[in-house]
Amino acid sequence: MSHPHPELSSPPELPDGGLRIVALGGLGEIGRNMTVFEFGGRLLIVDCGVLFPEEEQPGVDLILPDFDYIRGRLDDVEAIVLTHGHEDHIGGVPFLLRERADIPLVGSRLTLALIEAKLTEHRIRPVTLGVAEGQRHRFGPFDLEFLSVNHSIPDALAVAVRTPAGLVLHTGDFKMDQLPLDGRLTDLGGFARLGAEGIDLLMSDSTNSEVAGFVTSEREIGPVVDDVFRTAQERIIVACFASHIHRVQQVLDAAVANRRKVCFVGRSMVRNMGVAGELGFLNVPDGILIEQRQIEDVPPDRLVLVCTGSQGEPMSALSRMANRDHQIRITDRDTVMLASSLIPGNENAVNRVINGLTRWGARVVHKGNALVHVSGHASAGELLYVLNLTKPSNFMPIHGEWRHLKAHARLAELTGVPKENIVIAEDGVAVDLVDGRASIVGAVPAGYVYVDGLSVGEITETSLKDRRILGEEGFVSIVIGVDSSTGKLVAGPEIHARGAGISDADFDAVIDRIEEVLREAAADGVGELHQLNQLIRRTVGRWVNDNYRRRPMIVPVIVEV
Amino acid sequence: MSHPHPELSSPPELPDGGLRIVALGGLGEIGRNMTVFEFGGRLLIVDCGVLFPEEEQPGVDLILPDFDYIRGRLDDVEAIVLTHGHEDHIGGVPFLLRERADIPLVGSRLTLALIEAKLTEHRIRPVTLGVAEGQRHRFGPFDLEFLSVNHSIPDALAVAVRTPAGLVLHTGDFKMDQLPLDGRLTDLGGFARLGAEGIDLLMSDSTNSEVAGFVTSEREIGPVVDDVFRTAQERIIVACFASHIHRVQQVLDAAVANRRKVCFVGRSMVRNMGVAGELGFLNVPDGILIEQRQIEDVPPDRLVLVCTGSQGEPMSALSRMANRDHQIRITDRDTVMLASSLIPGNENAVNRVINGLTRWGARVVHKGNALVHVSGHASAGELLYVLNLTKPSNFMPIHGEWRHLKAHARLAELTGVPKENIVIAEDGVAVDLVDGRASIVGAVPAGYVYVDGLSVGEITETSLKDRRILGEEGFVSIVIGVDSSTGKLVAGPEIHARGAGISDADFDAVIDRIEEVLREAAADGVGELHQLNQLIRRTVGRWVNDNYRRRPMIVPVIVEV
Repeated sequence: MSHPHPELSSPPELPDGGLRIVALGGLGEIGRNMTVFEFGGRLLIVDCGVLFPEEEQPGVDLILPDFDYIRGRLDDVEAIVLTHGHEDHIGGVPFLLRERADIPLVGSRLTLALIEAKLTEHRIRPVTLGVAEGQRHRFGPFDLEFLSVNHSIPDALAVAVRTPAGLVLHTGDFKMDQLPLDGRLTDLGGFARLGAEGIDLLMSDSTNSEVAGFVTSEREIGPVVDDVFRTAQERIIVACFASHIHRVQQVLDAAVANRRKVCFVGRSMVRNMGVAGELGFLNVPDGILIEQRQIEDVPPDRLVLVCTGSQGEPMSALSRMANRDHQIRITDRDTVMLASSLIPGNENAVNRVINGLTRWGARVVHKGNALVHVSGHASAGELLYVLNLTKPSNFMPIHGEWRHLKAHARLAELTGVPKENIVIAEDGVAVDLVDGRASIVGAVPAGYVYVDGLSVGEITETSLKDRRILGEEGFVSIVIGVDSSTGKLVAGPEIHARGAGISDADFDAVIDRIEEVLREAAADGVGELHQLNQLIRRTVGRWVNDNYRRRPMIVPVIVEV
Repeated sequence: MSHPHPELSSPPELPDGGLRIVALGGLGEIGRNMTVFEFGGRLLIVDCGVLFPEEEQPGVDLILPDFDYIRGRLDDVEAIVLTHGHEDHIGGVPFLLRERADIPLVGSRLTLALIEAKLTEHRIRPVTLGVAEGQRHRFGPFDLEFLSVNHSIPDALAVAVRTPAGLVLHTGDFKMDQLPLDGRLTDLGGFARLGAEGIDLLMSDSTNSEVAGFVTSEREIGPVVDDVFRTAQERIIVACFASHIHRVQQVLDAAVANRRKVCFVGRSMVRNMGVAGELGFLNVPDGILIEQRQIEDVPPDRLVLVCTGSQGEPMSALSRMANRDHQIRITDRDTVMLASSLIPGNENAVNRVINGLTRWGARVVHKGNALVHVSGHASAGELLYVLNLTKPSNFMPIHGEWRHLKAHARLAELTGVPKENIVIAEDGVAVDLVDGRASIVGAVPAGYVYVDGLSVGEITETSLKDRRILGEEGFVSIVIGVDSSTGKLVAGPEIHARGAGISDADFDAVIDRIEEVLREAAADGVGELHQLNQLIRRTVGRWVNDNYRRRPMIVPVIVEV
């Protein structure tokens, strides 16, 4: 297997007739999926998603792929293919279209409807081309074929990319539910047909490559939902992703069977279910929906609320209910169902919500105690089917952290893909398919681009490092005024601390020492501001460490009067 | 079931002949276990542990129980019974003994050896009394009987507390491995005998009350460890808790069988295994151990390193190996085994370590892909046995978050404990056992006491709130100098931001506005420092929000010259 070297240099010029593949996101992380294909000077982008920040990125709203690699060549982009409507595949589109608004967006009906609704909020009207499974479309040198795949959102597609360099199959996200709720299977027949034609490179979803066996059918959740509905005392509150249309359909069906009304709570839930309903992906029985203002008019044992917040998001309605900070006051007659996976990293937040709801007496049904969620990604057992059916000459695991990519590579090896034809690439690594052989040829920058408030890319690693220090230790500011002509101390030191656990009065003990240090400096002729700054920082930092064993940020401010 | 009311008032005086139970930690959280029993004016403490901070408590080292409830009555404390040697049961002892050093510590041989080693580091020499299963000891009015329990550390005890108010069985932490490695079973016969005598109150470990079924025997891990040893290419690195003596024994046994040398890495691992070896709880074959400086002398395929870091602790040797920031450089011939549970909240950190090690090519064996850990706490199936054998008149679930306490209460109800005799208490809630009936009578303060650096209790919720804001948003400081007699602006505004993602030069745009606001204030006769302070804070806060949609901490500093 070829591993990227940590210090890969810029890739060489792409040989004539070669296909270059550079993932700007999604390799080495689960999120911000974006792959750039290049042939004959033209570019094709598959997906453009966001990554949600972890505690290592405090205060950040979203993380984007770094568009720098293509920034100078946006006019060469033939199209952006969106495999499905999840945020980690479409969330970056508004930011890319800010740079060139008329790049054609290619996707299924539902996917385009979801991205269009999102773009409307960004006041962007995109150029779109709707496609469906079984269709072929050519964009410049890229001859694309779309195949249906089953996933945790309807209308998802895999895409086969044909160029003179060969045939590449990009699966998108998929699982292989053999009894899917909407009857739409992952097109294994199509995969086999392409395999027979000869797949030069398979790029396949690695999310669950470490999980042995097979994913349970979505269908198995129905009876669990029914049981919750049958046994609920009064209100039922269901929390799930705003994109999980199949799950919401199950809730609507159970509501009909149990003569309950349903209220969608929250902007993204209302918007997405509206889109899904209009397009016929969600079957909404007449009269079952009520508005949020009508909640009080429905008896609690006839009511279902469907909201987001299943990941414990602190500002979500569900978290606020758990904290008794919401107009809906949880009682011991309520049943709450968290019908979602638990995204790694959210464990503590979800745990807090479950404990909060339990404390007020609610019955809480979640993946820890009932089958209320199944994964949207194929497990190892299923990935082997795909590898055996497609028989690729080269294999590149995508959509996963290192552990997932590596485990998927091992599966490929077991099915007979030659070890030297398996490419484990990271974000930014350039993989060239030349003469039927895929190999790593270099790397381009593919760092995190942070969205924070209105700014994109202004928050740097330095800002985040400052936030981490401030968040752990707080800061101490020392203000002094010096006479700009004589350099003599005329005001201060005034010392304030926040988050350091040291009261301002405690600093009286170090003020004499600072004044002494400044006097010594004056006597020694040390007068440059940055030198005084450093002296003060060292003096106070040492004093805090000696007395408190802590290392807050020390911020001297010298004002010249 | 009686739930504590959020606004419980102070408990009334304890009736004559009544027993009062107040947990100062461990109810509503997993950690800082500490229970205070009171009878006839005398106190008995069971356990005194620490809680490890989560991201809600940034920068904090440890969380202690609040000793305030007993602070004025430390001379009434007869003893501290330590059920076993885990940090969440003994970690608070050094802090309590600072307040009265001669409170007798009562525990098994291993437990006392572990706490003594820890107290030596705190320069405290405690008064101790070693006890063993089957023994009875009287401390003032408290007649104690000790029973063996099986747990993930050897030599753990349950304690039965007899007073004229009745018989209380406190299980400590336990599981019910029926084929334990050391042959030491949880004494169900003893539990049954006490049940026959009549248990007035059972206090039982709730950690795994939500988990159906039975915990796998520790013995099942042996073959997995053996398999790792047989198939490892070169070095083996095992990470586990420094207290998991049984797990380390399995590693030593496998090392002997595979003719490898073992090196303990890290202070707590070396210390604890030394203690366990001396007392005979760990069987260390002659000549198998090597010192860390001898590592280079042993061929890599003859070497096992045993270290901590299985929870992804950033400064641990294992994390540093994953980041290539350690003298031991991971290669694709290394095998790393994380032979520990994953404590909730550490998922991201552990995931980062697994990905880091995988990236350097190591084979990583962990609970996600092999049976390398079993829980130390009885599951629901086993808890039912205990409830049925002890047949308590009253039940109080302990050692758990709300969800666990509630689930355990439900199990008690299913076994026939009357609902009205089940008490779900939180930290600080006073439960009185009077006339054979346990009930909630009030509550005392039982908040978090934070250890940060050298300070205990100085970090407040306000400091933590400041840290959270600073950690998410950074701060902006605005320094101005005013003439102390005229109030006129003589220096500044100087504006600096850290962690806010705004460069100092960007603030030029708001300086005019600040000066204008100050001029208006002067014209209106507004001159108090706190008023000017507020004006500046508002002006800058609004400007930042309008231009960046962010809310950093705004810190005006006015220096009078």
